[in-house]
Amino acid sequence: MLEAIADVGLDASTGGYRRFAWTDADMTLREWFAGEAEARGMDVVEDGNGNQLAWLRSRPGVGRGSGASEHSGALLLGSHLDSVPDGGAFDGPLGVVSSFAALDRLRADGFAPTRPIVVANFADEEGARFGIACAGSQLATGVLAPERALALKDRDGLTMAEALAGQGRDPQRVGRADWLDDVGVFVELHVEQGRHLVHTGDAVGVASAIWPHGRWRLDFSGVADHAGATRMVDRRDPMTAYAATVLAARRLATDADARATFGRLEVAPGGTNAIPSRVRAWLDARASTEDELGRLVEAIVAEARQAADADATDVELVTESVSPAVTFDLPLRDRLATVLDAPVLATGAGHDAGVLSRHVPTAMLFVRNPTGVSHSPAEHAEDADCEAGVDALVRVVETLAT
Amino acid sequence: MLEAIADVGLDASTGGYRRFAWTDADMTLREWFAGEAEARGMDVVEDGNGNQLAWLRSRPGVGRGSGASEHSGALLLGSHLDSVPDGGAFDGPLGVVSSFAALDRLRADGFAPTRPIVVANFADEEGARFGIACAGSQLATGVLAPERALALKDRDGLTMAEALAGQGRDPQRVGRADWLDDVGVFVELHVEQGRHLVHTGDAVGVASAIWPHGRWRLDFSGVADHAGATRMVDRRDPMTAYAATVLAARRLATDADARATFGRLEVAPGGTNAIPSRVRAWLDARASTEDELGRLVEAIVAEARQAADADATDVELVTESVSPAVTFDLPLRDRLATVLDAPVLATGAGHDAGVLSRHVPTAMLFVRNPTGVSHSPAEHAEDADCEAGVDALVRVVETLAT
Repeated sequence: MLEAIADVGLDASTGGYRRFAWTDADMTLREWFAGEAEARGMDVVEDGNGNQLAWLRSRPGVGRGSGASEHSGALLLGSHLDSVPDGGAFDGPLGVVSSFAALDRLRADGFAPTRPIVVANFADEEGARFGIACAGSQLATGVLAPERALALKDRDGLTMAEALAGQGRDPQRVGRADWLDDVGVFVELHVEQGRHLVHTGDAVGVASAIWPHGRWRLDFSGVADHAGATRMVDRRDPMTAYAATVLAARRLATDADARATFGRLEVAPGGTNAIPSRVRAWLDARASTEDELGRLVEAIVAEARQAADADATDVELVTESVSPAVTFDLPLRDRLATVLDAPVLATGAGHDAGVLSRHVPTAMLFVRNPTGVSHSPAEHAEDADCEAGVDALVRVVETLAT
Repeated sequence: MLEAIADVGLDASTGGYRRFAWTDADMTLREWFAGEAEARGMDVVEDGNGNQLAWLRSRPGVGRGSGASEHSGALLLGSHLDSVPDGGAFDGPLGVVSSFAALDRLRADGFAPTRPIVVANFADEEGARFGIACAGSQLATGVLAPERALALKDRDGLTMAEALAGQGRDPQRVGRADWLDDVGVFVELHVEQGRHLVHTGDAVGVASAIWPHGRWRLDFSGVADHAGATRMVDRRDPMTAYAATVLAARRLATDADARATFGRLEVAPGGTNAIPSRVRAWLDARASTEDELGRLVEAIVAEARQAADADATDVELVTESVSPAVTFDLPLRDRLATVLDAPVLATGAGHDAGVLSRHVPTAMLFVRNPTGVSHSPAEHAEDADCEAGVDALVRVVETLAT
């Protein structure tokens, strides 16, 4: 199945994927998802936020408005199909195709689930286009306000509302989704983004927690001027404070065993022979607790301010999003770890499972990634480990839908 | 006259000009130039490189293939109309409109020049679109090879050849221009890009030299990875070496009383939650001698290599352009400084006058800039100082064309 979508959104020059929400690549993947689901006799419903849900009903009417719980509602599987810029082939799609593959194997074995099973393709998980990760699940759970999401702009200035309308979706329908009431438990399978499983020697692991994380924008501003005629001492060049902040963030995050990344940057006016007037930099930061994350960001911003002051430039902080720590449902996690005989590990990466975990009992499975590299064309999982992931999902369904 | 073009290429959000070569803004300015010249009875010729030359002939045939020299060929005035991104209103246009204004005043006084007078609008002086400054004058003088220039690409991947063809120009005509043989002397007036004249208290100064300068591209490369899941110590993030290089460049240039600027940057893949795989940075560097410039760039690159090695990342250097030092014609400079009673000053900024100076005796006049700021909307010259610039050009024509 991964091969069937291997060309969608592939950038030939980088070998990476550019599958951003509501782009043509995204629409192709949505069609592919619907086709796969329908071929399995599943009913595909798209909620107002673009989340696609393929329902396999145990019997008509079950799990619809029936006061779902871990034991009575639907079992939700799946992940997302969108990507970061130049992303890999596994982050997202592996969870979707493994869910379909597990259902195929169960059906071949004649397994009859006692509860509805749903495979999801969550919209805009990476937030690569509009800047907010897990936008689809955050909207469906009511965590993200529709009016805030709809006003978000992509790099070309197009709002999410305009992007939705451009693909024939009604922005009015964005918001809390009804299907959430029908789901009793969610299990998301995902490629590991790190090397924990390489160290333990396991093909599959179970998630314990997701670190708190967030995105902050630092706007460094100074005075544009001529690169040749302006003496160094006369400059108010915001690039200097930015550079000092990058080094400070690296040092502070290393010392705290946390994470700080500057991966996106805009320099204005952007001429080779002009001292910049503004450097706009996005900080992605994560730490094992919310307190530690707060301290880390505070320390980075303090160093940014100090560096800017030294050059008579300025820096302003804009908090774009902060996701609190997620601890997955303890009984469910322990039950799956026992059934699968799998190690338990924490992750620094955010997921739709983290968002859903505040509303329904949720677990995550990770599949081993030999290099640990993710968000890059180098992201990989061996075929045998992918098979082990499908086996694990089969056991999950057998455990939770019997 | 500056008011007539005040809206062309103006970015409403920044208040700066975006007048890049062969864009619609540039075409509007070219039409304006031709109209102003024709209204004065001048013949407008555009060479194969897009340089516009408005000829005011003293009598038919003079100065055409007549073995021009400082005393016998045409007197060339003018400057350029294009801009850097978010540039100011004076860098370039002031020299063009002051030349027209000086001719108006001379004509009103009944002055009859003894040699042809030409006002030029040089093409693509800032190099904002294709990366090579003074492209028009470098091509006309044969310093820049046509095949190299035509293959240069803008940020959208369009070549200069395609941009020329798109505006109805024949790329085959690019190259050494005949008009150069008919010019005996060139005087370019320009807004000062610094505060030398503020310190001396003069409205107008005469240039002694242009510092050697160049543009280098540093490609920092590492490994893209997940911003949350990758431990700091496991990263090969090229942003770190870039940041260290910015700080090193600032320190080294300050110590050498030279200039080093990073004003343009591309980060790939450019996602907030992805460690970059590549940071491409453009270095603009200048120093008072070619040896000093060489030492400066070498020292910056050495620090970049050292920083990259420390992170197991790489950096590669691409030299995009290097312009040697220019010392303007000494007798001409002294003659004009005496006639105008004006101070003599060096500049770190490159100009078409620097390119032409290797082919014909050339001088530059600077008009005071109260803040010294240039390549920015804050660039300014007082009306009285602009008038003094026109007065100076009147004296220059009286001195050189009598």
